Amino acid sequence: MARSTVEVVLEYEVLAPSHFCFNIEAAQRPGQTLLSERLAVSSGVSVHGFRDALEGNRFIRFEAPVGPLMVNYQASLVLEAPPVPDDLPQVPVHQIPDDVLRYLLPTRFCESDVLSTVAQQLFGHLAPGMARVRAVEQWLRQSLTYLPGSTGPMTTARDVFLQRTGVCRDFAHLGITLCRALNVPARLVVGYAWFAEPPQDFHAMFEAWLGGRWVLFDPTGMAEPGRLVRIGTGSDAKDVAFSTIYGAVRMTRMEIFVDEGDRDTQLRVQAELLAEDA
Amino acid sequence: MARSTVEVVLEYEVLAPSHFCFNIEAAQRPGQTLLSERLAVSSGVSVHGFRDALEGNRFIRFEAPVGPLMVNYQASLVLEAPPVPDDLPQVPVHQIPDDVLRYLLPTRFCESDVLSTVAQQLFGHLAPGMARVRAVEQWLRQSLTYLPGSTGPMTTARDVFLQRTGVCRDFAHLGITLCRALNVPARLVVGYAWFAEPPQDFHAMFEAWLGGRWVLFDPTGMAEPGRLVRIGTGSDAKDVAFSTIYGAVRMTRMEIFVDEGDRDTQLRVQAELLAEDA
Amino acid sequence: MARSTVEVVLEYEVLAPSHFCFNIEAAQRPGQTLLSERLAVSSGVSVHGFRDALEGNRFIRFEAPVGPLMVNYQASLVLEAPPVPDDLPQVPVHQIPDDVLRYLLPTRFCESDVLSTVAQQLFGHLAPGMARVRAVEQWLRQSLTYLPGSTGPMTTARDVFLQRTGVCRDFAHLGITLCRALNVPARLVVGYAWFAEPPQDFHAMFEAWLGGRWVLFDPTGMAEPGRLVRIGTGSDAKDVAFSTIYGAVRMTRMEIFVDEGDRDTQLRVQAELLAEDA
Amino acid sequence: MARSTVEVVLEYEVLAPSHFCFNIEAAQRPGQTLLSERLAVSSGVSVHGFRDALEGNRFIRFEAPVGPLMVNYQASLVLEAPPVPDDLPQVPVHQIPDDVLRYLLPTRFCESDVLSTVAQQLFGHLAPGMARVRAVEQWLRQSLTYLPGSTGPMTTARDVFLQRTGVCRDFAHLGITLCRALNVPARLVVGYAWFAEPPQDFHAMFEAWLGGRWVLFDPTGMAEPGRLVRIGTGSDAKDVAFSTIYGAVRMTRMEIFVDEGDRDTQLRVQAELLAEDA
Repeated sequence: MARSTVEVVLEYEVLAPSHFCFNIEAAQRPGQTLLSERLAVSSGVSVHGFRDALEGNRFIRFEAPVGPLMVNYQASLVLEAPPVPDDLPQVPVHQIPDDVLRYLLPTRFCESDVLSTVAQQLFGHLAPGMARVRAVEQWLRQSLTYLPGSTGPMTTARDVFLQRTGVCRDFAHLGITLCRALNVPARLVVGYAWFAEPPQDFHAMFEAWLGGRWVLFDPTGMAEPGRLVRIGTGSDAKDVAFSTIYGAVRMTRMEIFVDEGDRDTQLRVQAELLAEDA
Repeated sequence: MARSTVEVVLEYEVLAPSHFCFNIEAAQRPGQTLLSERLAVSSGVSVHGFRDALEGNRFIRFEAPVGPLMVNYQASLVLEAPPVPDDLPQVPVHQIPDDVLRYLLPTRFCESDVLSTVAQQLFGHLAPGMARVRAVEQWLRQSLTYLPGSTGPMTTARDVFLQRTGVCRDFAHLGITLCRALNVPARLVVGYAWFAEPPQDFHAMFEAWLGGRWVLFDPTGMAEPGRLVRIGTGSDAKDVAFSTIYGAVRMTRMEIFVDEGDRDTQLRVQAELLAEDA
Repeated sequence: MARSTVEVVLEYEVLAPSHFCFNIEAAQRPGQTLLSERLAVSSGVSVHGFRDALEGNRFIRFEAPVGPLMVNYQASLVLEAPPVPDDLPQVPVHQIPDDVLRYLLPTRFCESDVLSTVAQQLFGHLAPGMARVRAVEQWLRQSLTYLPGSTGPMTTARDVFLQRTGVCRDFAHLGITLCRALNVPARLVVGYAWFAEPPQDFHAMFEAWLGGRWVLFDPTGMAEPGRLVRIGTGSDAKDVAFSTIYGAVRMTRMEIFVDEGDRDTQLRVQAELLAEDA
Repeated sequence: MARSTVEVVLEYEVLAPSHFCFNIEAAQRPGQTLLSERLAVSSGVSVHGFRDALEGNRFIRFEAPVGPLMVNYQASLVLEAPPVPDDLPQVPVHQIPDDVLRYLLPTRFCESDVLSTVAQQLFGHLAPGMARVRAVEQWLRQSLTYLPGSTGPMTTARDVFLQRTGVCRDFAHLGITLCRALNVPARLVVGYAWFAEPPQDFHAMFEAWLGGRWVLFDPTGMAEPGRLVRIGTGSDAKDVAFSTIYGAVRMTRMEIFVDEGDRDTQLRVQAELLAEDA
């Protein structure tokens, strides 16, 4: 059991009336208990919240007028990560539950159809189950170089498999892709992570369906799966982008703060970034 | 109001125990009333049916042993297609319902992120709403050549935009992609269609969200949207493939039969095909 | 030393006045001595021959009127393939001759820039030289499935690396790509090959620059490099296509005949194909 | 007739012994007369110069030891650009000279095979010849946004056609691709250009074969074709990269200086860049 406090500060210059959809609130789910949370958006903006039908991810939407916009979210949580046995078996396809089956399908950033022969050649000879997914994780860690700026919002697992560089989301997308190609349902998990090396940031990992449960893997090796403050769960990054913006905006500040309490650190980072406009 | 009778016969040679997931049953939804239906699968196979959480698509799953497999589905329906006004407006993003918003996102076969500037350049100058989506439909019909065999199961809208050939699913995928890039929610619809020119076959169209409702378009111009016997509705072809097969099988027969009653025709086709194995 | 007799018969239906450029004549080069040859083209067509500036490949060009077109080429040759030592070293880049340097660059079908990290990861740990290129050849033979129809005229090495299927040209393109990515100059060689299993056909192999000379490899394992009747040598398939056609034509016959004299076989094949029009 | 003085200063930190191949010297060709030139490379480096077999581009090669490396090239020239008639006709394929024919083929960065239908749809209805190539140039200028950083060394014409952004080389690659797809031979030209808006830089344009001669086009509209100090001519950027480096280096300075004499300007730019290592 661990406590965690997270905070995100996002600031934008809105250049034309724009619609924002954020996925920044901590998920409410078994193993992740919200003690308190606070969401603040610039005054005058009318915020609407909803949960998606599949995974219950929490979204907020609003229309923002021209001018500065500020979004701030804080939460305190208790995390409880059950131990993960090392010998979870692969679930035969016919035993995969109906609502898990969809996580075998290829998605925008995870072309498991394209990489199916590759996955078989790389991992098909290994015993199925936890050990094989660990082998995928190890292969990712050894084959990919973590290199910020080497990929972008349209980079897919296929690209990552070819270029062998990426950031957390790319590592996770390729992991998901290889798992699906091996008939292991897999999906993306995003959240707040504490990194030994600052800055703190959003993070992405992947989850594989093994032995009848979802198991979380971090192929970057940068964070502990058991201490991720989960925000969203989806088929790939498009489902759980922290922001999807329709309009014309410029991001002027992004600050993320993660305090695990038992760690002697409080790290802040500020980034001046051009936001992804849509 | 129109009556329609549809039938599909699928036969496979199962080479190793395989898992089948079919999406061949007619949807139960407003405007499409099932009078009767019958599903038959080779004896000894235990069939499980379920509906997906998002659109209620009807799937059947089963594990099949080595040997021949036969699947037969028949249905009689009454279709009622409401008239579609010509002046439906585009819905501003902030008014798009929460559960429709997802149909603005890029998907495996519809890279609306990649084609966003292209869509703006081609159609951005037109008045938004029904007229603009009709312009997309017209552009598809004029720019693409319907050419069976020119694309495959991994062909995406990006490929189709480049090569300018495809089949119904490719026409629909590119239509969806262009709509999404114009901030019009769009999705794939598959079903049984009656074609003036045989053989009868599964067909794919696309639906766009206009004026607060879904409107169906057939950019191939081969079938009447109002007379499609809908099977499934999804974000793209991966969600509503008529079959997804895990194992080793060979398709030996596919026969589709569509009788619209008021048409003097009964057409059958038989295809010997290698099934997509997974 | 070996004798070989080759013949190709090509027939087209020319639908509109079209320009043909063929690369079907046996190369004249050390180790390949032409005893006799004969080229026949439908009467009334004025044929112009030339050699390209880089490799001396022999081309014939002509304009053909509407109607049937026949091209027939026969040659008798003596082939002498010098033995290839097993220990040829890799040539350091600074010692690569000026006119060989270009074969390190990426080309249309051989994206060695894209696969450079992949090549290092797969083969970078092996000792450079002949052994490493043999390892590339072995890897291709083990990883790729020879599957006619699985690729087309626009398939590149990147595609082949992902899908793991192809025909001789695809095997060769990926071999070239991996060699270049390892700083080994490499290029495509096309010719007439005798196959134990009919039909006889054009064939493609790749050549790598090792120990100061070009060494021929056949990653498909289908033919003997020393017995290939070489037609052309180029950076990739676009340089040495057997036909490049500008106009509207339909291929109606392609027959290739290879007689190695010491083999008890004369095999003929006829293919009705749609020609690539340009 | 115009005079021009150009200079380039390149500095690198060589991290491991590396091989450099530069294409920075002004071409010697009709219409471009060298009055004087000077090449200086860090002492102790043994420079070898050569010209390629196809276009006579001037290259220098050398092996550099670990440590700082400086390359400086200056030239004074007289340029004489013949007037370009507005009514040059397209040359029918059968009249294209043997050694020009290769510029119809697709290349690494110019996939004219992929975009052939697109080119026909966009420009096929226009009268062939100068006017059609001008239409291509205009389309590029209107459809593409000049956006440094939006593309990289592996970006191809296909990518540019999809994303609609790029730099000079991308504009030129797409121009070349569309011309070839229309059966107009086309190639890349790189050189030193004077820009009204600093910094001065290497520049890329494209050349099309019209009326029996090469005509230069600058689809970016940033420079005057007649005043480009040409360095190299090739099938695409891979043939005429200003530097190709095998080894491990870091570029620490790139300064380009163009003085057209009759313009009142001397502009310098310094860039700290990571060099492309190979």
